[in-house]
Amino acid sequence: MTNLSPAIEPVEYSAGTLRLLDQRELPLKEVWLDIDTLHPLLDAIITLAVRGAPLLGIAAGYGVLIGLNEINSDSAEELMAGYSRVRRLIAETRPTAKNLFGTLRRMDRIVRKGSYEDRKGLLEAIEAEARAIHAEERESCIRIGEHGADVILGRTRILTHCNTGVLATGGIGTAFGVIHTAFANGEIERVWVDETRPLLQGARLTAWELHKLDIPHSIICDNTAASLMQMGMVDAVITGADRIAINGDTANKIGTLNLAILCDYFEIPFYIAAPISTIDFEMESGAEIVVEQRDGDEVHGWGENKWACRFSDALNPAFDVTPGRLITGIITETGVYGYPYSNSLKGLNNG
Amino acid sequence: MTNLSPAIEPVEYSAGTLRLLDQRELPLKEVWLDIDTLHPLLDAIITLAVRGAPLLGIAAGYGVLIGLNEINSDSAEELMAGYSRVRRLIAETRPTAKNLFGTLRRMDRIVRKGSYEDRKGLLEAIEAEARAIHAEERESCIRIGEHGADVILGRTRILTHCNTGVLATGGIGTAFGVIHTAFANGEIERVWVDETRPLLQGARLTAWELHKLDIPHSIICDNTAASLMQMGMVDAVITGADRIAINGDTANKIGTLNLAILCDYFEIPFYIAAPISTIDFEMESGAEIVVEQRDGDEVHGWGENKWACRFSDALNPAFDVTPGRLITGIITETGVYGYPYSNSLKGLNNG
Repeated sequence: MTNLSPAIEPVEYSAGTLRLLDQRELPLKEVWLDIDTLHPLLDAIITLAVRGAPLLGIAAGYGVLIGLNEINSDSAEELMAGYSRVRRLIAETRPTAKNLFGTLRRMDRIVRKGSYEDRKGLLEAIEAEARAIHAEERESCIRIGEHGADVILGRTRILTHCNTGVLATGGIGTAFGVIHTAFANGEIERVWVDETRPLLQGARLTAWELHKLDIPHSIICDNTAASLMQMGMVDAVITGADRIAINGDTANKIGTLNLAILCDYFEIPFYIAAPISTIDFEMESGAEIVVEQRDGDEVHGWGENKWACRFSDALNPAFDVTPGRLITGIITETGVYGYPYSNSLKGLNNG
Repeated sequence: MTNLSPAIEPVEYSAGTLRLLDQRELPLKEVWLDIDTLHPLLDAIITLAVRGAPLLGIAAGYGVLIGLNEINSDSAEELMAGYSRVRRLIAETRPTAKNLFGTLRRMDRIVRKGSYEDRKGLLEAIEAEARAIHAEERESCIRIGEHGADVILGRTRILTHCNTGVLATGGIGTAFGVIHTAFANGEIERVWVDETRPLLQGARLTAWELHKLDIPHSIICDNTAASLMQMGMVDAVITGADRIAINGDTANKIGTLNLAILCDYFEIPFYIAAPISTIDFEMESGAEIVVEQRDGDEVHGWGENKWACRFSDALNPAFDVTPGRLITGIITETGVYGYPYSNSLKGLNNG
């Protein structure tokens, strides 16, 4: 069993203070935010200083704790009213973030249980739950990493897309965790990092995490994978997932489908790594997934620097949907599942 | 027969002055350079104010003329020495630019012919040759456009990559010329413009040219084509070429192979548009093509704005090689040729 740590701990709670790595400044600067009241944390979430679905779930847990820390009362009524207010403010930050609501539902159960005697008892129970959420995400990444490292055994040059490391998950990562684990096993020669336009999570975040871990890597433009594959320089592709239908159709960052088709053409294995919580057991196929269209302004440049013809329209779908039959395996914390996914994933539905 | 004009004339010579559109400033500003001596023109070529293989060939022709304009002598000896110096300086600007040397070889023949009586006669002959080179490039684009518009008939949503318009060719363009001609025929509903990382010729130059011509278009990130194709939103892909082997294997801007494989998967026609001068009749297959590796710094950002992890390596191949069997047709000024290209292209070799 491996016992890997991520490159950095982007979220850490200690004695009333949440220490956050400001991802808006990466990779140019490592700026840390020390947060001990709710409003700066809400700002950090809204402005993407902290981001990534599982990491948002973790931050929300500590956020509830920090919010309740501000209430100076032992009255059960005032504590409940305070919790309701904190919960609402956190829920309003990123209203479509699934993990954030998962955390809030867990906190609801703690608060409702009423097994605490006073403010101190409640805060201890909330802190324990926030730390449990954090620990579970870490553990899930470790398991995904182990299962993934088994299947990519001997595949030394791995291409990945977007960011799936500690900056997204709070643990060693999903696809990134597989790479990290395989590297620890001596398997990785080099990682090809898709820059991942338009928001450049690969060039900015994944490259930075790989650098921190001394894992050899090169950034490439998203249009370069085909050429590397043609030259025999890619042994496997592995990415994360935003949502997986029960037939294996997978929504992930725009550009993932592109890689899956290239792998099909060049007969290179293509893996998805994601926790079971990513599988939507209500969804029969990817045809039901609605693709989020983001502001075309993001395609016109990067941040304040706009280079495109300013009179031109731009199309900016946030993700694409890869058919299950193009996916060699889906790597989860309980094992690796193969096509046809309607059979292999079915037994995993415990929720 | 169509009689289309490009969006703009990026190179125009009149009465001793060459007017150049400064492509370094596009699309943010339209800056024109009025050049009447050799050295500013050499600078313009070296710093990419003027670029694109055929356009460089055109600029080099007028460059010889401007260089000779500076020699105030009727002595044949002094004119020959002056020509040698001008020729050497132009040849040194971009030593791998094929069209630039094509122009210089044509000028050598004019100078050697010696059919002029004096300085004035020589300058007239040189100007006539420079204008002929310009006119031939224009004519070649018109023919490519006509042949191409025939084959993409009824295909209303075209995806293209990089820049192949007037800013690259001095005429209506190659792949761009096909789109322009088809648009003039009422065929084009929308053009999808790959932004074309890392130098962004699509987002900056192609989008600007389409805007100038009022052709409906949207810029997309290079990783987005697969998703649009999956949704049935792309009817054909057409790109230019840097070099074509006689079996049809085609070197073009990095990302072209990617598009050809996607077209193969989604059964969408994939065309190359290029003048016959692009075909290398000495080259049996694309396996002989050496891919130019450019500075990884270009992948780290855009211009002065660098966003990538600065400790990370980056790989920056300038082009890729698309196998002939993935190319539906090669559109040239004499017609459209199909697979197998070893048969169809063979008869075109007159050089």
